[in-house]
Amino acid sequence: MVRGLPAAGAARGPYLTAVGRGLLLTALVAAAASFLPVAESSCPRDKSLVRDISRMQQSNFGREGFSHITVTGALAHGMKEVEVWLQTFGPGQRTPIHRHSCEEVFIVLKGKGTLLLGSSSLKYPGQPQEIPVFQNTTFSIPVNDPHQVWNSDEHEDLQVLVIISRPPVKMNIDVMNIELYRKIARCAKYLMNY
Amino acid sequence: MVRGLPAAGAARGPYLTAVGRGLLLTALVAAAASFLPVAESSCPRDKSLVRDISRMQQSNFGREGFSHITVTGALAHGMKEVEVWLQTFGPGQRTPIHRHSCEEVFIVLKGKGTLLLGSSSLKYPGQPQEIPVFQNTTFSIPVNDPHQVWNSDEHEDLQVLVIISRPPVKMNIDVMNIELYRKIARCAKYLMNY
Repeated sequence: MVRGLPAAGAARGPYLTAVGRGLLLTALVAAAASFLPVAESSCPRDKSLVRDISRMQQSNFGREGFSHITVTGALAHGMKEVEVWLQTFGPGQRTPIHRHSCEEVFIVLKGKGTLLLGSSSLKYPGQPQEIPVFQNTTFSIPVNDPHQVWNSDEHEDLQVLVIISRPPVKMNIDVMNIELYRKIARCAKYLMNY
Repeated sequence: MVRGLPAAGAARGPYLTAVGRGLLLTALVAAAASFLPVAESSCPRDKSLVRDISRMQQSNFGREGFSHITVTGALAHGMKEVEVWLQTFGPGQRTPIHRHSCEEVFIVLKGKGTLLLGSSSLKYPGQPQEIPVFQNTTFSIPVNDPHQVWNSDEHEDLQVLVIISRPPVKMNIDVMNIELYRKIARCAKYLMNY
């Protein structure tokens, strides 16, 4: 989506105002946000007390090889303090790089993969740590640390239970997608030097 | 523990002051609180990023046929907003009846059992609903509703993942144990009519 922007050339170099640059960045990060597995805003409230997870609605948010179930959530079940997701990543699938100010706990139910974890002290994610995760392990993401969960296995699915505090989740998208960031940087450089 | 109290007769009928009755109740509920699976206060802080759940320390809090693991918690791992437990109940085992002002989510990993759920609108728990739960179901306890999870199966273990908000959990123990409550009521009646 970002690829064609420099060539479009609607706003240029010294003539690109601060407002114009802001709008450009907003459009770019909004495009990236469409990949995020956020809760469905239109889902009906389910007031059942006990719910069978295997019968719950799955979403893939337009991403092949990905499945998301809101086991219990703010919009669907009226939770105010915690939300639980069940997510399955096919071989090679990964979350975007992102961060958030809530607490997040993962429990690996099946498969194995890699946690990529940057530091919140960096404005940009930099070179992340690569930490192997596998069935029956748990890990918590430090608040505001950029991270990515990646099914780095070539054959098996990776299934995780994800617990977040203070739902619905509010992502900080400045580090959502490092590749997108690189493209934004190239794009901005192009525009400023035009 | 409560059984012998009326016979002890240290405080009597019209002579039992409000302070005396308060102390008696405090002692009774403190005795009941010793059955609760709260996090170990002396456990060392584990700073590992990825932890193998199968190697974590189990506790049974002095209760036969019960196992508790703090998968991620306030005291052991510095969590501030969510805490996750893995609990296993042998056949017939159950939690005390209790309630708390935090949110609580259960995910049944193995076995089947019964959720007993009272209403927060009642000063005393009254006759609870009895709701069957089984593998791959989830349920959330409404804030402040008295509840009990019971492995009502005669053969299989019941294993649940428990998620609470705002750790460490603060139990309201006024409905912790309905049987204890009945004993307190009988005890108070005995003392008042002496």
